[in-house]
Amino acid sequence: MKVTVSRRAHFNAAHRLYRPNWSDEKNEAIFGKCNNPHYHGHNYELIVSVTGEVDPETGYVVDVKILKDFIKSEIEDTLDHKNLNLEVPEFKHKNPTAENIVIFIYNKLKVVLEDDLDLEVTLYETPRNFVSYSGK
Amino acid sequence: MKVTVSRRAHFNAAHRLYRPNWSDEKNEAIFGKCNNPHYHGHNYELIVSVTGEVDPETGYVVDVKILKDFIKSEIEDTLDHKNLNLEVPEFKHKNPTAENIVIFIYNKLKVVLEDDLDLEVTLYETPRNFVSYSGK
Amino acid sequence: MKVTVSRRAHFNAAHRLYRPNWSDEKNEAIFGKCNNPHYHGHNYELIVSVTGEVDPETGYVVDVKILKDFIKSEIEDTLDHKNLNLEVPEFKHKNPTAENIVIFIYNKLKVVLEDDLDLEVTLYETPRNFVSYSGK
Amino acid sequence: MKVTVSRRAHFNAAHRLYRPNWSDEKNEAIFGKCNNPHYHGHNYELIVSVTGEVDPETGYVVDVKILKDFIKSEIEDTLDHKNLNLEVPEFKHKNPTAENIVIFIYNKLKVVLEDDLDLEVTLYETPRNFVSYSGK
Amino acid sequence: MKVTVSRRAHFNAAHRLYRPNWSDEKNEAIFGKCNNPHYHGHNYELIVSVTGEVDPETGYVVDVKILKDFIKSEIEDTLDHKNLNLEVPEFKHKNPTAENIVIFIYNKLKVVLEDDLDLEVTLYETPRNFVSYSGK
Amino acid sequence: MKVTVSRRAHFNAAHRLYRPNWSDEKNEAIFGKCNNPHYHGHNYELIVSVTGEVDPETGYVVDVKILKDFIKSEIEDTLDHKNLNLEVPEFKHKNPTAENIVIFIYNKLKVVLEDDLDLEVTLYETPRNFVSYSGK
Repeated sequence: MKVTVSRRAHFNAAHRLYRPNWSDEKNEAIFGKCNNPHYHGHNYELIVSVTGEVDPETGYVVDVKILKDFIKSEIEDTLDHKNLNLEVPEFKHKNPTAENIVIFIYNKLKVVLEDDLDLEVTLYETPRNFVSYSGK
Repeated sequence: MKVTVSRRAHFNAAHRLYRPNWSDEKNEAIFGKCNNPHYHGHNYELIVSVTGEVDPETGYVVDVKILKDFIKSEIEDTLDHKNLNLEVPEFKHKNPTAENIVIFIYNKLKVVLEDDLDLEVTLYETPRNFVSYSGK
Repeated sequence: MKVTVSRRAHFNAAHRLYRPNWSDEKNEAIFGKCNNPHYHGHNYELIVSVTGEVDPETGYVVDVKILKDFIKSEIEDTLDHKNLNLEVPEFKHKNPTAENIVIFIYNKLKVVLEDDLDLEVTLYETPRNFVSYSGK
Repeated sequence: MKVTVSRRAHFNAAHRLYRPNWSDEKNEAIFGKCNNPHYHGHNYELIVSVTGEVDPETGYVVDVKILKDFIKSEIEDTLDHKNLNLEVPEFKHKNPTAENIVIFIYNKLKVVLEDDLDLEVTLYETPRNFVSYSGK
Repeated sequence: MKVTVSRRAHFNAAHRLYRPNWSDEKNEAIFGKCNNPHYHGHNYELIVSVTGEVDPETGYVVDVKILKDFIKSEIEDTLDHKNLNLEVPEFKHKNPTAENIVIFIYNKLKVVLEDDLDLEVTLYETPRNFVSYSGK
Repeated sequence: MKVTVSRRAHFNAAHRLYRPNWSDEKNEAIFGKCNNPHYHGHNYELIVSVTGEVDPETGYVVDVKILKDFIKSEIEDTLDHKNLNLEVPEFKHKNPTAENIVIFIYNKLKVVLEDDLDLEVTLYETPRNFVSYSGK
């Protein structure tokens, strides 16, 4: 009996989308307002979903307090109130799109979770735009 | 690495549920208040989810601006502020239930999206009732 | 010690905005898509707020079950799944704008509530557009 | 063509997490504040999702009114305004964690639904913590 | 120039509504399901709103971090994961209705805030029922 | 009969809080993570509320389409996807705190609205922190 346990979290960050090897015109055409060289920002909302067997003694798949602590140490401490392009090495040469951020978050959490737990991460860049990734 | 990108949209419409070949009693029994011959209406909330590979150059699965434009041209321009029974040919002889509307939206969007993108559409008829369809 | 007690409710309805004594061009210019002669509709969300002294015995300003019943009998039974223009006499010759509907709801509830209770009604026509009225 | 129809509901309940065969220290270490012997409580939000073929006559997978009645009779009447540990036999000797409650709800609803309908239940214990179960 | 600064918080608690000097029948008639002697519970959502002049140096009315700490020390530490009837002295002989709880929260916060700041507290007992109090 | 009409909007922006005439230590102590010299950002949600008499002909206090256009031209075009410190002259020498931004928005909208309309602006910096200002 596999149950999925989800925990919601959030962080705020600034970012910019552009390719240094593209002309200004192409960056503007592809990334529009997101290409602003002075950066803009978002309140990122995060849902971390972990699927596994329910422990018959505790009735837990995973202790949500532990999950919350992992999200704090691995994700919030790394991304909250940061400039993603300048302060997160992963995004020095890779665009901090929602897609790339959600893969980054997935990879950071996957390694600290028990191997037999499945993971899916959903990331809201705005209330209207969001992405999800489950390692497939 | 497949990521799902979702975009939220909305439209308002009037509709009525009934079968012309049924008696008034049967229409009333099956469709209840939704059978009102003068129509009633909803704020439909829509989530369009597209799954595909992340482009390594842009970091996008799909440009959300393009997705937003498709939702505008294919769905909002067709359904927003409309009477679904009277003004949308698809629902002239088919009940505009949430189920039938979500399939209609899926089919309209599927043909304009790249072939290698998977699509799922979720449609909220009210904050408490919603449906989803992924072409299966 | 005056406390405000609020109860959320909702109803669905169809409506149309237009003035029969105006030309089609003027109706179109002023009311735009809301002028569709075939009607469109909304999920109206309603917040009814009642302010008064806390009863020292019960700890209630008003029993929310009673407030809920008033909203059901006075508002939902009158407006839910209705065509406001055709089925609600108040809107036969008056436009069912959010402003006029919220005043209508306020007046219907004010007469059934105890005289010493203040009333404010907020009405969401969509999640982005809402109005409120407190009888002033 | 399989569509998923979802209905949102809610109930309020008190509960406590502990294992009678564990020491107080262990209960405190594992369950923290949830181990309070005087109980605490939640507004549980519930999403019941049913997947099946769309009936070509009605345009329904399932009549949401019937689904709503099942949720009322099977779940709300059993759990709403209850102390889960003391008043729900299932949780006399099993911890009422969100995981165990969602499985309980799934099992109660599965038996009353048509056999050819798939079921998934999502349960929010708080707006930030939720679980889901689909019988797998 | 007075600006209102609001901070949202939450706590979970169990409670029961009844009057020991009333008959069981009267308690049942007035308080209904809320009279369950085994308690039930809620996720209380809280909005604390502070109004005052903007400090021209910092641009703050009040430092939200300080407001957050007050809510933690005065309210969450007192009420979160508690049985309000049994563990909060204020509600030993007074019903923990939403009205009485919001007044309690107001009084606890008012004394720790600067005298020249106005305070209003809104408390959601459920997403559909909420109360507010501003000391008037 | 005065009714309040509200319109919700949003914009994304980057910002930083600091005082150039303060030491790094003082900036860090007062503004914490918000002092990050590389900026961070938010999805600002905005509610613009206009109070006035209902026009007996149209049933409008204000045409929401016109209000929406004012919010677009005065606020979104000025603030969306911008770095508030670097690109909005108002915040060159004044901290872009939520308080100062909400006053800025109020002042920009007040001058374009009819004189006999009252205005209140609410600005969510995050879902948990928000401010409001009505010119008093």
